[in-house]
Amino acid sequence: MSPAVEVTLAQFLQEQRALVDQELERLLPRADEYPVTIHRAMRHSVFAGGKRLRPVLCLEAGRLASGEEKPLRRVAAALELIHTYSLIHDDLPALDNDDLRRGQPTCHRVFGEAMAILAGDALLTLALHALAEPGLCLAERQLRMISDLTRAIGTPGGMVAGQVADLEAANGAADAEALEFIHRAKTGAFIAASLRAGALVAGAAEADLDALAVYGEKIGLAFQIADDLLDVSGTSAELGKTPGKDDRQRKATYPGRYGIETSRRRAESLVREATAALERFGARAQRLREMAQYLIERTA
Amino acid sequence: MSPAVEVTLAQFLQEQRALVDQELERLLPRADEYPVTIHRAMRHSVFAGGKRLRPVLCLEAGRLASGEEKPLRRVAAALELIHTYSLIHDDLPALDNDDLRRGQPTCHRVFGEAMAILAGDALLTLALHALAEPGLCLAERQLRMISDLTRAIGTPGGMVAGQVADLEAANGAADAEALEFIHRAKTGAFIAASLRAGALVAGAAEADLDALAVYGEKIGLAFQIADDLLDVSGTSAELGKTPGKDDRQRKATYPGRYGIETSRRRAESLVREATAALERFGARAQRLREMAQYLIERTA
Repeated sequence: MSPAVEVTLAQFLQEQRALVDQELERLLPRADEYPVTIHRAMRHSVFAGGKRLRPVLCLEAGRLASGEEKPLRRVAAALELIHTYSLIHDDLPALDNDDLRRGQPTCHRVFGEAMAILAGDALLTLALHALAEPGLCLAERQLRMISDLTRAIGTPGGMVAGQVADLEAANGAADAEALEFIHRAKTGAFIAASLRAGALVAGAAEADLDALAVYGEKIGLAFQIADDLLDVSGTSAELGKTPGKDDRQRKATYPGRYGIETSRRRAESLVREATAALERFGARAQRLREMAQYLIERTA
Repeated sequence: MSPAVEVTLAQFLQEQRALVDQELERLLPRADEYPVTIHRAMRHSVFAGGKRLRPVLCLEAGRLASGEEKPLRRVAAALELIHTYSLIHDDLPALDNDDLRRGQPTCHRVFGEAMAILAGDALLTLALHALAEPGLCLAERQLRMISDLTRAIGTPGGMVAGQVADLEAANGAADAEALEFIHRAKTGAFIAASLRAGALVAGAAEADLDALAVYGEKIGLAFQIADDLLDVSGTSAELGKTPGKDDRQRKATYPGRYGIETSRRRAESLVREATAALERFGARAQRLREMAQYLIERTA
């Protein structure tokens, strides 16, 4: 990738993040709204930074189907609320016990465990409330989007199931199958559903939905492998979270099982496969292609 | 209430509970489905007993509008999943730190804190997935039901907000306004939304929805006052949870603020007001009238 293109992608991502943050600002209760502590806790974690990866993927997927911006932004912001809920709960002492996230103290470090648990609950609930707002798109499509997304973030095959398998694989040797399940369920399913959510709201054709799902699953896996690699090689300042934790917690990781070089090659081949799935969209999918590459080249 | 009527209501409630439990069995992942621990944890708490109050209110509200049984049962079961999620999270050590619930060891006592947090998350997510199942009723109404319900269980005015206000009022003197907010948000909003959910899925008229909302808010408050009174007077065997905890945790309660006699009278007058709101439905609302009375006469 040439530096010129990279700057352009970086600028694009920055613009998109600003759009998503504006919508998040609209969605979230104000920090002074009673009972204030939980609204402060929700805002602390949502606005602690973050790449807004899932929202931007959702927006770009919807734009491929010429979707209207307003409902797309609503859905995109709701996805970030869901992502933030999952981070808050994952960081809790009973789970990954993390002090830092996105370069900030984690929610429970600032507001205590009780408030962090409830802030996560409230963010998930608010996200679903936003997604069910009457009139975002054709009601049947909207229901399908909620159904699809809640499958991707729950059990038995979604994000919560992936987190459970991840916890259970720690302190033990995860076999190849368990590792694949963890990555697919914990990260891949939600990323794929984020793309599908944008496409569904925009009224995309079935074949387009399928192509975006393939792209999403591939980059989801690539993203998780890149994340594991960063945990090995990154610094705390770069990551905004504590590096080397996977190893200390004996987490099941790609580099842990297959080594760094094989993991890098696997991530690269997944990105190639993801990009190939976008062929039907031609030049209009250029940003999604760049983002796939960015995911494995990023340093944070 | 005569003993003959009481037996009939008891039988009715038992039948309805059985219907709800059948539907819950259909909705929940099997206990042997991978990753098994979370599915066992979800089932442990859902099938630990419980009155299935919200589902039965939902079913009866829907039947007033001659709603079909199948979608009503689906919605009713989803409400119980949401209720169970809230109990699991409320019982966590960082929140109410309860060992007993519905006469069984709480989720975190059996499965650990991490699994209890995730089981709650998974139950909430599964509930929304069930509620969004395409084709339950007219799609526009279904979206409105999800929107309404997620408002009632989140922040700033719903169940999570009520739980936050409750936590913050502990160890301090809650004023009358805070106490009213806690009861309304923590219990009343979800109970009212449960009735409205049944009515919405069944296609009830707006005036019927409004009447059911009034009934729901009144019995929600009455229920919470009765619960506070039981915490003062009940035994562990009757309650299936540890009594006297409100007082030890210096929770804001009606009896604590207004005394036992005034609280009883307030609960009774709320039940009268609730019953009055049902007048438009005539004899068909008999079960809902009986249930309102039952709520403040129960011993568990």
